Amino acid sequence: MSAPRVLLILDLAGTFAFSLNGALTAVRAAHLDIVGVLTLGAITAVGGGVIRDVLLGSLPPATFLDWRYIAVALGGGMIVFLFGRWLDRFAGAIDVLDAAGLSLFAVTGAVKALALGAGPAQAVILGAITAVGGGTVRDVLIRRIPSVLSSGLYAIPALAGAAMVVIASSAGWDQVFGAPAALGAAGVCFLIRMVGLHRGLDAPRPPGTDNRDSADD
Amino acid sequence: MSAPRVLLILDLAGTFAFSLNGALTAVRAAHLDIVGVLTLGAITAVGGGVIRDVLLGSLPPATFLDWRYIAVALGGGMIVFLFGRWLDRFAGAIDVLDAAGLSLFAVTGAVKALALGAGPAQAVILGAITAVGGGTVRDVLIRRIPSVLSSGLYAIPALAGAAMVVIASSAGWDQVFGAPAALGAAGVCFLIRMVGLHRGLDAPRPPGTDNRDSADD
Amino acid sequence: MSAPRVLLILDLAGTFAFSLNGALTAVRAAHLDIVGVLTLGAITAVGGGVIRDVLLGSLPPATFLDWRYIAVALGGGMIVFLFGRWLDRFAGAIDVLDAAGLSLFAVTGAVKALALGAGPAQAVILGAITAVGGGTVRDVLIRRIPSVLSSGLYAIPALAGAAMVVIASSAGWDQVFGAPAALGAAGVCFLIRMVGLHRGLDAPRPPGTDNRDSADD
Repeated sequence: MSAPRVLLILDLAGTFAFSLNGALTAVRAAHLDIVGVLTLGAITAVGGGVIRDVLLGSLPPATFLDWRYIAVALGGGMIVFLFGRWLDRFAGAIDVLDAAGLSLFAVTGAVKALALGAGPAQAVILGAITAVGGGTVRDVLIRRIPSVLSSGLYAIPALAGAAMVVIASSAGWDQVFGAPAALGAAGVCFLIRMVGLHRGLDAPRPPGTDNRDSADD
Repeated sequence: MSAPRVLLILDLAGTFAFSLNGALTAVRAAHLDIVGVLTLGAITAVGGGVIRDVLLGSLPPATFLDWRYIAVALGGGMIVFLFGRWLDRFAGAIDVLDAAGLSLFAVTGAVKALALGAGPAQAVILGAITAVGGGTVRDVLIRRIPSVLSSGLYAIPALAGAAMVVIASSAGWDQVFGAPAALGAAGVCFLIRMVGLHRGLDAPRPPGTDNRDSADD
Repeated sequence: MSAPRVLLILDLAGTFAFSLNGALTAVRAAHLDIVGVLTLGAITAVGGGVIRDVLLGSLPPATFLDWRYIAVALGGGMIVFLFGRWLDRFAGAIDVLDAAGLSLFAVTGAVKALALGAGPAQAVILGAITAVGGGTVRDVLIRRIPSVLSSGLYAIPALAGAAMVVIASSAGWDQVFGAPAALGAAGVCFLIRMVGLHRGLDAPRPPGTDNRDSADD
């Protein structure tokens, strides 16, 4: 399979994971109706990519030009609207989907940033912004402190995944091991996020403060 | 009257309606001073158009280049600052102004998106984003769940109005009946919104959830 | 010293002041961990400039292309993470840093807007947006009513500083007295903000409302 095709699939998979996550959040945390569920799902799904494309000046954003992103983003929301109660039974489904979207978008975001001419440091940051952007907009809209601020091991795996992509690219590995390199970087990001989540790990807090829970509710 | 002139008038009318609405919200919900009233009025008025122009890559946004938008947006806020208590007596003024801005911007947003080369589906979405964008930024700034998420019949009339514009355009009607077609689409959007508001209609909620009130406060 | 060099120094100083302020806010108001402290510091520091560059269509934003901005923004956050308790002892440090960032960015934002071809009114507005943008994003992310809405003498000094830059530029003074003119405009903005803050001055409220405190908490 060619590298662009793998990337498109990973990008659509991330879009799908985030649209399920955003729509589940709409059902669970904010008791929204069908329009709210679809809208929050779609915004969570395409938000990170739109912010990346705006910052890169690559406008209109890819998610607007390609109907598949909109279809997948709305399809995920519709599935949650119809079967959300069933999905909810899987313990942690909402967190797993969030971690999946985070990992896939950290990788595809960094690849796209490199393809559009960003430098290595910029590509790492833009990969992380792609990964955390949609969830941040989701949290702002339903009035939660965004995960990227309150949960230490949220930005770190995204930065790690994006950094692996940039290193692989500058070493030329992405030409040889395109798909496995991308999947490996996404897998590492996913693992760090899930381990951090399940062990309740957090990044260090400022010296002298008690390590109480974050302001997240 | 030429079509562009009609569109400019509708666009400025929408800007005026939203600036009155945003400024009234600032007075009522957040007890802001004159700077807050003018700022929230102006952001509500130009927010949707700015987001549309950013997504289309049409920068700087039209509302920044044309002094009439800024003048109308600030003028509306000043009227509310001086006469807000009088305006408040009209029951539902704040909702009527919101519905007017929503309808006018759904139409002008879709027309501008088409003019800037967006495809039909994109033009419908961008029309709706223009319509709901300013109010969404307003709600985020004063910490409310945005209407587009919490109120089912908010995005739907905007999408309907924008879709009518796109259909009229692809059928070539806009060449023949420019102003009436635009006014008709805005009128339909306005009617759906006002009927939904007064009848307390809501879009369907997920199956199995009690149809309690949304998380909106 | 050449004018561009002075401007770069003022811009980096504003970035540093806002990153200290945003990071202190993260420690104080939201009890965030190191990632949250660095992220909120960096977003506060570069947010205003990014919004200005997006609105001007000057993409990618300058703060993304020049590593010094990112280094200064993260450096400020790291200083706060390590020495935040010590910095906190200085009464009002958080407000002074905010006023410093506001003043420096109002000036450099207006200069950059003029350099990128914005008209005089647009340059004043864009200077003010540069000044208040980062703090507004900071406040939205930690769920506070933004200062620009709740505190009357926040937007006014920013507009005044930016207006002085535009007047100096149209009079040709900036060619002769580049650095002093810029520093003077920033100084006036800083003074207005600090006097307003310490005297508890507020912009006028709508007639007929009791002048109670704003909705800010």
